[in-house]
Amino acid sequence: MTEFKSKIRTIEWIDTFSRMVDQTLFPYEFKYVDIKTGDEMFDAIKTMIVRGAPAIGIAGAHGVVLYAQELKDLPREEFVKKLLEKADYMATSRPTAVNLMWAVEKQKEVIKNSKSDVKGIIEELKQNAIKLENEDIEINKKIGDFGAEVVPKGATILTHCNAGALATVGYGTALGVVRSAFANDPTIQVFADETRPRQQGARITTLELTMDGIPTTLITDGMCSYFMKKGMIDMVVVGADRIAANGDTANKIGTYTVAIAAKYHNIPFYIAAPLSTIDTSIKTGDEIPIEERSHDEVTHINGKAICAEGVNIINPGFDVTPHELITGIITEKGILRPDYTKSIAEAFKN
Amino acid sequence: MTEFKSKIRTIEWIDTFSRMVDQTLFPYEFKYVDIKTGDEMFDAIKTMIVRGAPAIGIAGAHGVVLYAQELKDLPREEFVKKLLEKADYMATSRPTAVNLMWAVEKQKEVIKNSKSDVKGIIEELKQNAIKLENEDIEINKKIGDFGAEVVPKGATILTHCNAGALATVGYGTALGVVRSAFANDPTIQVFADETRPRQQGARITTLELTMDGIPTTLITDGMCSYFMKKGMIDMVVVGADRIAANGDTANKIGTYTVAIAAKYHNIPFYIAAPLSTIDTSIKTGDEIPIEERSHDEVTHINGKAICAEGVNIINPGFDVTPHELITGIITEKGILRPDYTKSIAEAFKN
Repeated sequence: MTEFKSKIRTIEWIDTFSRMVDQTLFPYEFKYVDIKTGDEMFDAIKTMIVRGAPAIGIAGAHGVVLYAQELKDLPREEFVKKLLEKADYMATSRPTAVNLMWAVEKQKEVIKNSKSDVKGIIEELKQNAIKLENEDIEINKKIGDFGAEVVPKGATILTHCNAGALATVGYGTALGVVRSAFANDPTIQVFADETRPRQQGARITTLELTMDGIPTTLITDGMCSYFMKKGMIDMVVVGADRIAANGDTANKIGTYTVAIAAKYHNIPFYIAAPLSTIDTSIKTGDEIPIEERSHDEVTHINGKAICAEGVNIINPGFDVTPHELITGIITEKGILRPDYTKSIAEAFKN
Repeated sequence: MTEFKSKIRTIEWIDTFSRMVDQTLFPYEFKYVDIKTGDEMFDAIKTMIVRGAPAIGIAGAHGVVLYAQELKDLPREEFVKKLLEKADYMATSRPTAVNLMWAVEKQKEVIKNSKSDVKGIIEELKQNAIKLENEDIEINKKIGDFGAEVVPKGATILTHCNAGALATVGYGTALGVVRSAFANDPTIQVFADETRPRQQGARITTLELTMDGIPTTLITDGMCSYFMKKGMIDMVVVGADRIAANGDTANKIGTYTVAIAAKYHNIPFYIAAPLSTIDTSIKTGDEIPIEERSHDEVTHINGKAICAEGVNIINPGFDVTPHELITGIITEKGILRPDYTKSIAEAFKN
């Protein structure tokens, strides 16, 4: 298989600092910022200069290295004590992203288990951060390659929200499938749902795909069925925020509507996500808590109201697509198929 | 039944001029403008100060009266000749709205058939314009009352786009059903789809419903299935742009997606429209031409880009909901039910 060379690297450790794309500027600018202190990193995560759960995890890991560098002149014992405190603080920069806690925890293990001096610990933290970065990309490439096997020749792939390079260190999950397929078949193209309210499809997915030269058509969320009926969509691939043990999948609000439309038109609907997204402690999607987000996201666009005052708003950030609407779950260990309760349990055994 | 008193009158003839709501200001202002010359009316229609097919029709009829007033000092023969020319010109202010041609034609018949002098013809044109206004409201009230009979007590009604008072002279079709139901059951409430790309649900539907004191929740287009699954939507009622002889219905883009979601959740899905919307010359929805609209509607909101440059756009203004997804078509002659080929033919016989 030809490998896809993406232009996009969302976050990267460079010698003594973290370089990341400033995602608050999308879709107007694609600009890197260098984050050189732990507190700067805390703010970068909090203000969503970096977003996307896997990317935030790496940012947290980098943040721990930055704090370590700042504390380098302390005696070893004090260094370790202070740094563990700073690591815990870093993990609070976004309260809901599980990857953030997970990555910071990985760094804390390095600190606790190290036999080195301060300089040595700092070096080990850097190496561990780089390892986590590389693992993220490797997992995405595996997901992409497994997914590419089920993409028909010349397919038009519909996606919702952004499960792309810009939500990860690079390559992406759902858009990783697109990249792997495109590398071997340049007639592949993408339809991107705008994804109201936050418009990640319009702002982020169109940006990263056009940067990588993949033909992309932006549509509004209500249009999907129109194009499905016309035979212009061959498959749907989306990411996931959390997958239950039975395959029910929480993803960006609007995903469930697309899944129903795909079922109605007999179009395959795939989830692309690493195994770490599967929460086997949760039996069904009913147990997944749905975050209620700010009403401004619905009522305002670019700071300007789009509706009458006095209107009610309910703004669920996610919805749950029931497993019976999902054709397959594309993971780094292959494509899981129904019955998901069995195939997921199996994937976690190996 | 209690009658609903709406605060909204979209367009009205007042003695010597036409008063209309300036719809270009929505949702920021609700302001009336007085149109006092024929050329001003031509521009008001062209620039969408007035929009919605039935409202545009009345505006055209008013425009003919305005031109007639300007020509009042001409000798009768010259007056008639000039006025018929001006009427034809008025009908070209929006090329696609059938109601505009129809209403101007009604005024031309008055001019041609009149036995009066110039002053008398002008008076007859005024009276005819007012008659057309009243008929529009009467038809909507009948649609509303028939529709209210199938609205469950305390129902939450989902609607898409704006088929309301502000698309007609007053009262509305889909929102006429809401008004008639609400008059007798103030626990009725509405969920309004934003309706991207042009956001008529957000900009217009939320405005007219909150003005009339009807509780309204604005949701983004992708959210409908989420609320349906939660049991928070009891029925869907939308308008129509054109209905084929078999019941297939063209309406604002996104309607078809809502209809599929309603079917999946076993929620009744109704069309509310006057019989004049049914085009019996067209057998199925496949024959309804779908207007492709400006790409800016998708790529820009309030003049600002929301996506990357270089992205492709396809912007169909309408989609067709197949008759098998439609529970009933609410008209001024009652609710038509499947088999629509039969029930529509029957309605046109009487």
